[in-house]
Amino acid sequence: MNFVISNTSFHKDSYLDDGNKFLIGNGYMGVRGTLDEYRKDKFPSVNLAGIYDKVSDSWREPLNAPNPFYTYIEVDTNKCFPSEETPFNHKQELNFRHGIFSRKTSWKNEKGLIHFKSERFVSMNNCHIYGCKFSAFSNYDCNLSIYTGIDKDVWDINGPHYTKISFKDIDNLVLCNAYAGNSHKTVIVTRKDFFLNEACEFNDGIKKFNLHLKAFEEVTLTYLGAIFTSNDSLNPEDEAINITCGFNENSYEIEKKKSIDVWEELWDICEVNIDGDEKANISMNYSLYHLNSIAPRHKDNLSIPARGLSGQVYKGAIFWDSEMFMLDYYLYTNPKVAKSLIEYRIESLPLAILKAKEYGHSGAFYPWESQEGGIEACTYYNVIDVFTKRPQRTYFRDKQYHISSAIVYGIMKYINHTLDYDILINGGAETIIECAKFYLSLLLKPFYKDKYEILDVVGPDEYHERVNNNAYTNKMAKYTFKSALECIEILKNYSPKLYENKKLNELIKDFTTAYEKIYIPCPDDNGIIEQFDGYFKLEDVSLDNLKSRLIDPREYWGGAYGIASQTKIIKQADVVTMLEIFHDEYDENILKNNFNYYETRTEHGSSLSACMHGLLACRFNEPNIAYPFFLKSAETEIKGKGKKWAGLIYIGGTHPAASGGAYKVLVQGFAGLYFKDGKPKIKPCLPENWNGLYFKFLYNNKKYQVSITKNHSKIEEIYHG
Amino acid sequence: MNFVISNTSFHKDSYLDDGNKFLIGNGYMGVRGTLDEYRKDKFPSVNLAGIYDKVSDSWREPLNAPNPFYTYIEVDTNKCFPSEETPFNHKQELNFRHGIFSRKTSWKNEKGLIHFKSERFVSMNNCHIYGCKFSAFSNYDCNLSIYTGIDKDVWDINGPHYTKISFKDIDNLVLCNAYAGNSHKTVIVTRKDFFLNEACEFNDGIKKFNLHLKAFEEVTLTYLGAIFTSNDSLNPEDEAINITCGFNENSYEIEKKKSIDVWEELWDICEVNIDGDEKANISMNYSLYHLNSIAPRHKDNLSIPARGLSGQVYKGAIFWDSEMFMLDYYLYTNPKVAKSLIEYRIESLPLAILKAKEYGHSGAFYPWESQEGGIEACTYYNVIDVFTKRPQRTYFRDKQYHISSAIVYGIMKYINHTLDYDILINGGAETIIECAKFYLSLLLKPFYKDKYEILDVVGPDEYHERVNNNAYTNKMAKYTFKSALECIEILKNYSPKLYENKKLNELIKDFTTAYEKIYIPCPDDNGIIEQFDGYFKLEDVSLDNLKSRLIDPREYWGGAYGIASQTKIIKQADVVTMLEIFHDEYDENILKNNFNYYETRTEHGSSLSACMHGLLACRFNEPNIAYPFFLKSAETEIKGKGKKWAGLIYIGGTHPAASGGAYKVLVQGFAGLYFKDGKPKIKPCLPENWNGLYFKFLYNNKKYQVSITKNHSKIEEIYHG
Repeated sequence: MNFVISNTSFHKDSYLDDGNKFLIGNGYMGVRGTLDEYRKDKFPSVNLAGIYDKVSDSWREPLNAPNPFYTYIEVDTNKCFPSEETPFNHKQELNFRHGIFSRKTSWKNEKGLIHFKSERFVSMNNCHIYGCKFSAFSNYDCNLSIYTGIDKDVWDINGPHYTKISFKDIDNLVLCNAYAGNSHKTVIVTRKDFFLNEACEFNDGIKKFNLHLKAFEEVTLTYLGAIFTSNDSLNPEDEAINITCGFNENSYEIEKKKSIDVWEELWDICEVNIDGDEKANISMNYSLYHLNSIAPRHKDNLSIPARGLSGQVYKGAIFWDSEMFMLDYYLYTNPKVAKSLIEYRIESLPLAILKAKEYGHSGAFYPWESQEGGIEACTYYNVIDVFTKRPQRTYFRDKQYHISSAIVYGIMKYINHTLDYDILINGGAETIIECAKFYLSLLLKPFYKDKYEILDVVGPDEYHERVNNNAYTNKMAKYTFKSALECIEILKNYSPKLYENKKLNELIKDFTTAYEKIYIPCPDDNGIIEQFDGYFKLEDVSLDNLKSRLIDPREYWGGAYGIASQTKIIKQADVVTMLEIFHDEYDENILKNNFNYYETRTEHGSSLSACMHGLLACRFNEPNIAYPFFLKSAETEIKGKGKKWAGLIYIGGTHPAASGGAYKVLVQGFAGLYFKDGKPKIKPCLPENWNGLYFKFLYNNKKYQVSITKNHSKIEEIYHG
Repeated sequence: MNFVISNTSFHKDSYLDDGNKFLIGNGYMGVRGTLDEYRKDKFPSVNLAGIYDKVSDSWREPLNAPNPFYTYIEVDTNKCFPSEETPFNHKQELNFRHGIFSRKTSWKNEKGLIHFKSERFVSMNNCHIYGCKFSAFSNYDCNLSIYTGIDKDVWDINGPHYTKISFKDIDNLVLCNAYAGNSHKTVIVTRKDFFLNEACEFNDGIKKFNLHLKAFEEVTLTYLGAIFTSNDSLNPEDEAINITCGFNENSYEIEKKKSIDVWEELWDICEVNIDGDEKANISMNYSLYHLNSIAPRHKDNLSIPARGLSGQVYKGAIFWDSEMFMLDYYLYTNPKVAKSLIEYRIESLPLAILKAKEYGHSGAFYPWESQEGGIEACTYYNVIDVFTKRPQRTYFRDKQYHISSAIVYGIMKYINHTLDYDILINGGAETIIECAKFYLSLLLKPFYKDKYEILDVVGPDEYHERVNNNAYTNKMAKYTFKSALECIEILKNYSPKLYENKKLNELIKDFTTAYEKIYIPCPDDNGIIEQFDGYFKLEDVSLDNLKSRLIDPREYWGGAYGIASQTKIIKQADVVTMLEIFHDEYDENILKNNFNYYETRTEHGSSLSACMHGLLACRFNEPNIAYPFFLKSAETEIKGKGKKWAGLIYIGGTHPAASGGAYKVLVQGFAGLYFKDGKPKIKPCLPENWNGLYFKFLYNNKKYQVSITKNHSKIEEIYHG
């Protein structure tokens, strides 16, 4: 398979999309695939995982480091800027097998041609290290100036964050100390340049080299550096300097090689092979590249923001995306990362308990948008009205109760997949029980009924706020009660002492009552499950008709008065997600009827939507119906067509949940992988255009190879390393 | 006291306000105080009580009859229209002791002066009859044309309603048959003109008289007629003709005299006398004039629309205004009218039960905006957004649960005042019990609590929609449970058989539980009762600051994103109303603290707000604090300053609830009238600028006179007639 994607010509306005598409990352940092010459108006960023800052009343968001990949050249005092001087040739590409971004640009003038090329990587071997090599070349004698260094003018959505940025030049090593005074965070970026003894001017992080370049003589420069923050170390300056001092003129190739080697190891387990559908094959593996680029490996309690490390969108916050869409991929290919995602939530439990209290609930109410340690980043005003420019009160933060069940779902999945029960003792059980207590406190028994209801919620379909008895939410609450009971049972066997200490008898009684009496909407006469009380009474309008009602294309469809709010049009899979998760409790016809009913009424306005449809279609054995939904998810990153706006808020970036979702369709849907009695099993149903499907996965510390062809399929354990 | 209000000059743009201010009515019809010459662009109307029609998707609203008061003159072929030709003199006045509207206008031209005057009444003696006398006069010889007749071009808000209008001329009697085809309603207007044998042309309801008018010779015409609808009779044409045929040239004065006599009877009981404050005295009596003009006397099951009979605003619907604000006045002065208001609700019970079912509740959920028989007129989209022109989903219809408690409050008040327990057997008890069942079905018991809550409601303060545990709503629900229990107890004694039949034991148990366990918010450490869960956390902003945030002056302040919605600013008395109703359960300090806290945060955007503040201030013995609130209510009609717009919806008209509320402040607040052990008592607290207060009232079939002076106060029973 070809692991390279490229642009073969220059498009002035594609920098926003290209930033995501050509992104390189290593879980510690994400470097947007913008060009060396680009400054903040083109949204370059070195987005850092898990470090946040807040400026006055703006949204709290992750820090972008000062950009150490800044370079441009001047030839005979003419600036060579692709965005200003249209290039004669331009090519940029990403080798997504090895995480290397490169570009080559040439400009033509009356004297001849000038070429500039560069490549860069962030190390998968040591997440703090980055490197770049660039060169210039001309077919005529010219005066070349190279400007290169650390650009302190950082692109921020809700910045500027750095209240002080200073530079030091230590033995040819440039150190940038950027201080975010509001949160007392420090970001250190070092950089060491290797360029044969040319003198240079140094100014505010940028070096200027002047040289006379002879025709056909190429001049090459490499630089490497390190990034550390005050989150990593008490003395990030020393850490960065120590690493950087050790670099010499060979280091670039050495570090690059080390990084490539780690990438190769990753691909060994995660590469998938779809025989007969190269488009899907490339898109899928490219999506996995993104999942690998943002997976936290350097810390054991980090999770992944909804837009990965592609920028500050959505406040760099962790959503249910992590547990419900991404977790499986890491469980199957890198359980240590999966564990990190789970540990992150366990560590967030105290704040989740505080949040529940804040709203008068018991137990643990997880943040809808979670920053480090479980800080709730979601505001009450998450949308700006396009007509009045006023912030609009939204209920994501205080009513999207299903978030806590996602944490439970993640932990249970982790345990069931890894059989690592230690995590239960180390906070996992407590987390699950607190989540169950949270749902208990949401239960309401109407005077005339012997059922418990959950009212006033926002389900996965966020266009319908403040609804009652959302099927998904109620079912997940029920699942949470069951999980808590299971988890107590496990504790009983696994750690009787802990079980004793917890005095859980009263809770067992309550969870059992709640499990038995919570109201779960049943399929109606047509086999359709009502998404929430009253949904069936809403206006039944086609998606096209609805769209025609838009006055402004950036209007938010949801909220109290959005065009979708009083109609049956939903944002994303809701009942469909519920049925996918609990598919073995429902008849295949119910799955199919609900798929058909809801799919035509779904905007798929979230990148989380298509994959759930793809999965569900596989559950009722229709891989060809599933296929376009799979492809849509798998191609989300490569096509970069995701929604860019919610009201006046920019929401673009990468979509790791869609990638994780596509992987789920592939592995759980088309291959039909499931686990029973401690063993993996498959029940393949390939799309008709596929000849075969091959992938590896881990389960309970064992490694397996799945091979599916039209006629034959098998799972084999792989015994060697 | 002077019972005349007037305009002594002409204002081209005052027709909308004047229509309300100079309105005449008799409970069957309300005739807006517009000039004889005015056609539908100036909003004349003969608004009919209790007869409704709906045109396509527009709002269902009451019918306006074709206008039989249409007249204009032409002098030497020049039209004399005050709105086009500025009058030399103009005066219009309302004698509100007798319900007579009159006007006098003169125009000046190069030849001399032309005078036109008219007076009109609608009969308080026979509600179908109307009459008018007009005359013209000039100080020079001229050719006069008089155009006079029935204007079929009716002003409608959501019309046109008449699909067919035809005229017949029967022996000098003009009959207009207007047919509203959508609802198959017929409105008949007859008119007989008395004008000494002048020949005329007749065209489409309008007669044209041509005559040569000598200088200083006055020409006078009287006309009388009748209005009947298909709601009144199977044969409204015959009814109208029968009456009208009987009229002769003396009839105008005779019918006018009969009407005046009935007015005098009304004033005998209802006139109030405020000694030392003529402004308040006139305003109050003028307000009572309005209450008398719209009181249903011709039918025993009608209630009063929120805008009286001043037009089609608010769909001519009945709100909680009737029971909570107007009822007392009629109980005290005309219990038959009070009974009609109550009977109207009892008759509406079946539809209220259906409405409760529609929303999955039990019992009786009364309409927020009630048309005949209890048809719910309130739409889900009661506001038009000023920015997008889109209808805005509002929750008045489906969440303003407190409406049913108002019905209970009304019935209990009626029984306690009249001791007419028959009404209980004739549907009253059933109504109360069904309302209590309704509140039972709203009760929700949270898993962790031993209390019942009512969630997701709209309280009296409509700016905050979908709130939980609104103090007013919960308290009124509790009151309803108590009333149901009391009413069952009365039945037990009063009609043991009926009691047996009803098998009420189970209900007694449930109502008792509910009464004991419903959650009622308590005063906090500062003595303040939180209006609803979370109110204290809202932004505390001044009214002026809030107003400065308006982008468009017509913006709706409430709804999901209105400027008030996320702040503590409320539309109208909410906790204050609750405390006024239940003032004897709270310490005076609590009453005062809450008054002070909420009053500064109240827009008083509803005409229902001021009177409740006035009443409450009297409850903590501060008549001087109460006074401006009393005056505001009492002057609502005479000043005509009420709110005219909610979003893009016109909401102007008369405000009988404000008038009724002012009366309550006067009688229950300043006079401190209350009833104990079957006897009326007073506990006066007059504003310092008043010397005395005198009024009569009825209680339990007895008539009393209250006389309060600075030094002395007494109640005496009046034994004659």
